[in-house]
Amino acid sequence: MHTSSANLRSTEIEIIKIIEAASRVESRGLLVGPGDDCALVRPPEGEDLLLTKDCMVEGVHFSTDYFSPEAVGRRLAVANLSDIGASGGRSIWALLGLGFDPKRPISYYARLIDGLLGALKEDNVALAGGDTVASPRGIFLSLTLIGKTPKGRSISRRGARPGDVILSSGSLGGSHAGLLALTQKLTTSIPYPMMRCLKKLHICPQYPKGLGEALLEADCVTSAIDSSDGLAKDLRHIGEMSGVRCILYKEKIPIPRPARYLARIMGMRPYELALRGGEDFALIWTTPSERLKEARRIASSLGHRAFEIGRIEAGSGLFLEDSHGLQKEVLEYGYTHK
Amino acid sequence: MHTSSANLRSTEIEIIKIIEAASRVESRGLLVGPGDDCALVRPPEGEDLLLTKDCMVEGVHFSTDYFSPEAVGRRLAVANLSDIGASGGRSIWALLGLGFDPKRPISYYARLIDGLLGALKEDNVALAGGDTVASPRGIFLSLTLIGKTPKGRSISRRGARPGDVILSSGSLGGSHAGLLALTQKLTTSIPYPMMRCLKKLHICPQYPKGLGEALLEADCVTSAIDSSDGLAKDLRHIGEMSGVRCILYKEKIPIPRPARYLARIMGMRPYELALRGGEDFALIWTTPSERLKEARRIASSLGHRAFEIGRIEAGSGLFLEDSHGLQKEVLEYGYTHK
Repeated sequence: MHTSSANLRSTEIEIIKIIEAASRVESRGLLVGPGDDCALVRPPEGEDLLLTKDCMVEGVHFSTDYFSPEAVGRRLAVANLSDIGASGGRSIWALLGLGFDPKRPISYYARLIDGLLGALKEDNVALAGGDTVASPRGIFLSLTLIGKTPKGRSISRRGARPGDVILSSGSLGGSHAGLLALTQKLTTSIPYPMMRCLKKLHICPQYPKGLGEALLEADCVTSAIDSSDGLAKDLRHIGEMSGVRCILYKEKIPIPRPARYLARIMGMRPYELALRGGEDFALIWTTPSERLKEARRIASSLGHRAFEIGRIEAGSGLFLEDSHGLQKEVLEYGYTHK
Repeated sequence: MHTSSANLRSTEIEIIKIIEAASRVESRGLLVGPGDDCALVRPPEGEDLLLTKDCMVEGVHFSTDYFSPEAVGRRLAVANLSDIGASGGRSIWALLGLGFDPKRPISYYARLIDGLLGALKEDNVALAGGDTVASPRGIFLSLTLIGKTPKGRSISRRGARPGDVILSSGSLGGSHAGLLALTQKLTTSIPYPMMRCLKKLHICPQYPKGLGEALLEADCVTSAIDSSDGLAKDLRHIGEMSGVRCILYKEKIPIPRPARYLARIMGMRPYELALRGGEDFALIWTTPSERLKEARRIASSLGHRAFEIGRIEAGSGLFLEDSHGLQKEVLEYGYTHK
């Protein structure tokens, strides 16, 4: 259809120029980069490739009210880097689909691309190409990331076994608490330092760089997922795909202090934030108990945590266990049986 | 941010189920398909990979007024397959980013996916994964396609040389004429059979399957591009990136008869439709004149045409030449000097 006027076209060309200028990263495997019909890349010998794609939509995954353009770009990169990491791989090339809203100035997109490419460069990922199109009803972003992993080796969601320990590389529920704080107008009821911390947890999530790859190499991981949809949904994926039961230790889920504070204000239980939340981009993984010590050593050597949050048993379903050993089943979307 | 309610989530899950059920294509290189954090693929030995991405936005690239959902999906596939083809490759894997508008019924997306996967399957492309997200302000689609090509060999836009012939695998301007017919309310002034043909040219474009790959293998191509942005812009890319001048033969541009008819009604010159139009997805390529006969033979053996539409000279710029040898320079977006 292409209703794009000459004006839209010139915006598009400006944005493409910014992307091309910013994306000149040396990458041995990238033979032809942005500017042709396709990028041409040479896959590393003896390795398999991991493919992932994550989209972000204005008004659904981010609001321009409290996300800076740099933070939007950075979050898009982190969501994708986290997926490749959770599969045990190392990211190499990216393709960006950008739907730009022509009502925003070019400088907005320059800043967004700066945030995106900054985060990609930290991981030595080259932007190989993409597509820039007008999207007058709001920005959308679609990033494809291609990573590598030794032939025949990757972490899937299918490998958890009874006796395995469930670990998390970071705290959980913080991003969701941050979103609630920002959208439920709780700004005045939360002390400023806590509010600042909550905002940061939502807007500027971290992912445990290099951890999946190192755990896979050291045979310290049987299954993994990144915490993007909330612990309940994420662990249910692992449980169903591995054919096992997941037991979560209610008191051991690492929830940031400001998130606990917010839960109290809102009359929620802190663990509900972790179960229903998501987008923390911590690595949730399972390790055979005899490899637990080594897994902890690896995480620590990379500067990441390894919280023991549960165990795998034979059976099915997801259960929350308190310190007295009492269990409750966790239902869809993180609600528990009363 | 994820404002997605349980309702949106269940729509998302339904759509993902449809995609997963429909995408079970046997593909030797696809080790892990949809359902994990990443897809895992084994790149074919001794080959390089081509990467491309094409986005489509409701209201910009297609209107649901006259595009069936199947046609939307099919067009997305064709736009991407055409890019891999123009680089001389063969498509293998796809990743779909789908922003669904929850106001449309699930059946709409089932039909869209059917059109997309049908077109991908015709070319033995496996859907390896993707991301499905809510997009309440209108549908967007982002397809990433990964293809293969023999190591170190691909067609770029940089290789055209003085003396080369410019060829087109199909007629041009038809898709743009179809769009004008549909949007300028010309339905009553165009005879029905012509209108039907114009609609089809816009809604259901064809691309020359296998042609780029065969021309590359036979050393019959120095540069190529798919006709997606209009002949003026597309040839300007080739001219600028190859550092040459492109001469187009005004009377020899193959314009479908209904498009010529529409041009007359609208007071345009038919060639303007081809110059400014686009989205015909024909292959535009250059061949050394001594390889012209072989190039024609290859195109014909695959059931495609090979219209001789111009030549390459030393210099720069894009010129339109009439049958008397008179030349006019073609300016930005297909307008000519008066």
